[in-house]
Parts: sequence; C-alpha cells; structure tokens
Amino acid sequence: MSPTLDTPCAVIDVARMQRNIQRMQQRATQLGVRLRPHVKTSKCPQVVEAQLTAGAQGITVSTLKEAQLFFAQGVTDILYAVAMAPTKLDQALALRRAGCALVIVTDSVAGAKAIVEFGQRHGERFEVMIEIDSDHHRSGVRSDDPLLLEVARALHEGGALLKGVMTHAGESYKLDTPEALQRIAELERSECVKAAQAIRAAGLPCVEVSVGSTPTALSAAHLAGVTELRAGVYVFFDLVMHNVGVCGLDELALSVLTTVIGHQPEKGWVITDAGWMAMSRDRGTQAQKCDYGYGLVCDVDGVPIDGLLLRSANQEHGVASFEPGQVVDVVQQFPLGTRLRILPNHACATGAQYPAYVALQSGGEVAQWPRENGW
Amino acid sequence: MSPTLDTPCAVIDVARMQRNIQRMQQRATQLGVRLRPHVKTSKCPQVVEAQLTAGAQGITVSTLKEAQLFFAQGVTDILYAVAMAPTKLDQALALRRAGCALVIVTDSVAGAKAIVEFGQRHGERFEVMIEIDSDHHRSGVRSDDPLLLEVARALHEGGALLKGVMTHAGESYKLDTPEALQRIAELERSECVKAAQAIRAAGLPCVEVSVGSTPTALSAAHLAGVTELRAGVYVFFDLVMHNVGVCGLDELALSVLTTVIGHQPEKGWVITDAGWMAMSRDRGTQAQKCDYGYGLVCDVDGVPIDGLLLRSANQEHGVASFEPGQVVDVVQQFPLGTRLRILPNHACATGAQYPAYVALQSGGEVAQWPRENGW
Repeated sequence: MSPTLDTPCAVIDVARMQRNIQRMQQRATQLGVRLRPHVKTSKCPQVVEAQLTAGAQGITVSTLKEAQLFFAQGVTDILYAVAMAPTKLDQALALRRAGCALVIVTDSVAGAKAIVEFGQRHGERFEVMIEIDSDHHRSGVRSDDPLLLEVARALHEGGALLKGVMTHAGESYKLDTPEALQRIAELERSECVKAAQAIRAAGLPCVEVSVGSTPTALSAAHLAGVTELRAGVYVFFDLVMHNVGVCGLDELALSVLTTVIGHQPEKGWVITDAGWMAMSRDRGTQAQKCDYGYGLVCDVDGVPIDGLLLRSANQEHGVASFEPGQVVDVVQQFPLGTRLRILPNHACATGAQYPAYVALQSGGEVAQWPRENGW
Repeated sequence: MSPTLDTPCAVIDVARMQRNIQRMQQRATQLGVRLRPHVKTSKCPQVVEAQLTAGAQGITVSTLKEAQLFFAQGVTDILYAVAMAPTKLDQALALRRAGCALVIVTDSVAGAKAIVEFGQRHGERFEVMIEIDSDHHRSGVRSDDPLLLEVARALHEGGALLKGVMTHAGESYKLDTPEALQRIAELERSECVKAAQAIRAAGLPCVEVSVGSTPTALSAAHLAGVTELRAGVYVFFDLVMHNVGVCGLDELALSVLTTVIGHQPEKGWVITDAGWMAMSRDRGTQAQKCDYGYGLVCDVDGVPIDGLLLRSANQEHGVASFEPGQVVDVVQQFPLGTRLRILPNHACATGAQYPAYVALQSGGEVAQWPRENGW
C-alpha cells in the first residue's frame, strides 16, 4: 500500500474483486442464465468492464445518469430497474434515439399508459418489463393480481414492446441461513415465472424473466424458467453480506484506508480520519447477528484486528475501540499516523461517498478509478 | 418550483437560509464574539459567500480539500478543525506557502511534535490551536489534564505559534431541553476558558478561545472569555436540530425534491425516487423524541404533510406512508408523477449525496450551486 495515498480513500482489492466477478459469473453459467450485473454498486467504468469481460451480458442501472455514463462508454444493452417516472421519459427517449437499447420498467396501469402515450407522441416503441412483487418488500405487481394482465395489455395494446417480467427479492438481505435464503430464492424465481406464464397464457408476449439479488443469486437451487440474473453488491461484498452468510471476510474487496489522528487512552479510543463521511451513515449490520458499528477495522494490509470496530462516527472523525473491558494500550499499538483499513457495512453506500476509488493490484500498484455519483 | 427539475435534487430555500444566517450572526454579535461558520455543512461557495457577507469572520473546515476550495475563492482565514495527521502536513504547508492563513489543531504531544519538527524542517511557523475535550464526547485534552501544558509547551518551545484553544460540545446534539442545552453551553465555554487560563498562567500565549456547535451557540447565556463561535448546520437546520429544539420546521432550508414513481395501495405506500442515495443513510432522529424515519414528507411547496414520513429507503426507492391505521387513498392523493419535498434528518449528510444544489429564490427562480465532496 502506497504510503503517499491521501486518507480517507476507498480501496478496491482488484484480485478479490476479480474472484467475486468470476464466482457470480460461474453461478449464472451453472444455473443456465445470463448475468446482467447491477452497476449501482460501483458506478465505475473499470469495474463494469471487468464484469463484461468475464461474461456479463448487458448491465442493470439504478439511475438514468448511470445509463448515460455507461452508454457513452459503449454499453448498449441496459435495463433501468426502477419504475419509470413519466417525467423521465424524455431522458429515456434521448438514450434510445442515440442507439441505446434501454429497457424500462413499470408496475402500474398509470405508468404503462404514460409510457405508451409518450411513445405514441414521439413515434418510439419503448421496450418495457413489468416489475413483479415476489416478496412484498417494496414495489411491483403480485403474480396473482388481475392488475398484472391490465398492465401487460396496456403496454402491448398501446404499442410498447412488452419484453418480460423482472423482480428483486430484497427481503433476502434480512435472512441469514442457507435454508431461508434458498426458500426466498425459490419464491423469487417461482413468482416471477408464474407472472410470465400468466402473461403468456393471456396471449401476450413475455420473453424475458429476470430475477436477482446477491443473496438469492448465490442461494438458488435452480432457475428453471428464468432467463437472466441480476446482482450488484457481490462485486465488492460487504459486512452485511457476510452476516447474511454469502461471503467470507476475505472476499470483501472494498475497504476504507484511514489514518490514526488521535487517542483517548483512558477510554481505549483510537480516533481515525474516517468518520461517517468516509464510511457512509449505513448501519446495515445493526439489526443483524453481528453488529459491526460503522465497520470492522483491519491493519494496513487488510487483515481484520479481532474486536476492533469503528463504534461511532462524526463527519470526519471515527472512534474505534475494542470490546469494553478489553485492556489495550491503544497509543502504543496504534501510534499517531498509523494507517488502518476499515471494512464497510454496505459497499454501495460507502462507495457513494467517493468521487473515485483507489484500485490496488496484488503487486501493490495503485490506480485511480473514477466513480460517477448524482443523478 | 420548476416542473423541469430532474429528481431527486437537493433544494436550498434561499430566503430561509438567509434568515438562518442572520439569526446566527446576530447571536454572535449579541454574545460579543466573532462567528467562524463551519462550512462542512454546505461545502458550497455561494452559501459561504452569504455567510461572509452577513458578517462571518473566517471559516472552519473539516477537510483540507475544503480549505483548498475556499482559499481558491479568496477566503484566507481558515481553521482546519480536525486533529492534524502528520501525513497531511505537506498539504497544510502548501496552503500556507500560497498565502492561506491556515490554522491547524492538535490534542497530543505526539501531534505537537510532528507539527514542530515538520515546521522546523521546512522553515514554517505553523499556527496551532489545542483541542479541548469539554464534554468527553470525542477528541481533545481535558482542561485539568497535565497533558494540556505539555502539548502547549511542545508547540511553543518547538517554534509553532500557539494561537489558542478550541472545543466542540458535540454531546449537545443528544439533548432536547433549553435547560440541558444551556448547561452544556456553559460547560463548553467554561472548560475552554479554563484551559486558556491554565496555558496563560504557565506563561504561554493563548489569544483565541473558540467554542461552538449549533445547539450550544443558540443556547449559551453568555460567552465570557470566548473570542469566537463556530457552528455549521444552522445554515440549513434539519430534523435533528428541530428535535433538539433550536429551530422550527419552517426554518429548515434544505429539502429533497422527489417524484412519486409508484404505490402499494393496500399498504398505503407511496414509492418515491428519493431513496437513501438521495436522503443519505442518516437516521439521526431514531434515538430522539420524534423519529422521522428517513425524512418528513412535504408538498411541492415545502408544507409538511401531517404524518407522512419516508419510513424506509433502498438505494433509489423511498417508501412513504402515514401512521399505521390511518386510511388514505394514496393513489388518488399522490398520483404517479406527483412532486413532493422531503425534509432530511441531517443536512450535512443529505447534502453530501449531491454534486450540486438547486437554489430556489423566493420568486421561484432556480440556480445550480455547486458542492465539493471528497478529500
């Protein structure tokens, strides 16, 4: 690790990232589906390039800005996986007119009508997927809701290209046993396939059946009837995913490099220049089986220091300490200026705090990889 | 509010911001101290310009990147209020060499020695303040700790310019009665003054006595012995400060403009395109007397909608709903495409999610005001 790096900075362990990419790509191949990674985790051209090189087919985005960025870099097959706001249709149109095969999503008749009316007005046949609510955690239409066929008909009869159905079992983030994960993966698959079958039974087209989240993708026993898998955070993994049980600590590819800027020796506190601005305010492990505070502290080489957590955080100050009662001379063990690395709760949130990553190759070379934030 | 604004975006109500700036400036004047606003809240040139125009003298920063940004825009009197990491001394030196009157901070003998040794090596007499721990919440030296004079001597005898003492009573954020706030404001003042007196009694220089946080600045009965006041979040205020009791809801100057992208009618859920990426993951009101979830939802004009909170958030999805049991036809009341504004828990954290603000003048005109993130 270069001693000249300014801290805090967000470090990608490139070798770990490549192994994570290989692991998910092999899963998709074994399951007989295409992999369409969700790039909202990294928002980074070099990371996405590595995913595509490994075999990913197309990408998933969470904002139209991501779509614009990656289209500008040559990716044409893009699914915008958030229900389309009517006010954003002009941006979607501009992307399609420029040659991007952007696919958009809706889960309501009002949404479908807005898309087809806008499409008719501008002579554009949008490609649309219907979002299915497989686990009741957020948005989407239930597979057994008559609304499903109403939305499908509104799209098809209005002249849109009804491309298929998609779902995301976000409830899987709250689980932590292989059995529960396998059950929700099967629910995600079966509900989405059921929705596709209902649409086809009504004589409407539904080629694609798209499912996924990192926990379900890594837990599904099979994906019969599914055509593509989406997952995002697997590219870096994080402490939340470690608690869910789908990765080891030595698979976490994103960490925050920090410098010790002070101590409160009597309290056993090590003050770091990584506060919540560097880690994000994400406390995703708070309700999980192991609460890592704002992150698990490691030495500069990324080896976890047993029991040392970033237990509280202000904007540019972090306070790391061991378990209460564990007597450690923190000034001697972590002198002023010591460099440490902190594994984050949630890689998507921590990455978002940075305009760029530091990509660390296994030989020790570092490079700056940009990241595009905002909307 | 312009119907063409892309959502989500971070809106500054400029009239409210100006009133907040006036209020704090008048407080400082009444208390007989200079105001040195903490610009970590906005990181925005136009906001800081408004603070300086209103009478602020110098600024406080939380990163050296902020110092570089505002120095490039003509601000020379800058306090970097985070304990100096030895590895950042070259950046501080570069700023001073360029003509910035940067003041740095330490709270340890090791820190003081690193500063004076670096200064001697480069022929630079750094101006340094000693951080005082007035409320035990984070960093700093206790006013009665013999260490205080050791640090002061290490600086003074090593050739640094010992400028004074500074403290920040961050514990005040956890309080919510005028009496408790006045008590902690007095603790902040008296501990810092005591430290200054101890340094002076030892025959060492200590001109400046700098205290502050938004709650204590607005609660102090007097500031005898203090020379300057620092505060940051007052410029926008937020729901945390409202719970603390130092502002009304109608003083909150930062909100997130969002668009309704869907519903779950049976659950009474309104899905917005403002998720945690737009609001931040800050849940600062969780432990306060009123938990606002991820934010209090308002109509497009910023008028709070009673009981409607952003109760959960994914990266680009928010879920707003009323109190459980409150029956509302959310599809009819908030149709697809409806614009809403959401008041955030913590303005510093929400602002940090955006590369720029939308500044909304009282006449309805909007302008883009940049914000500088990162390190």
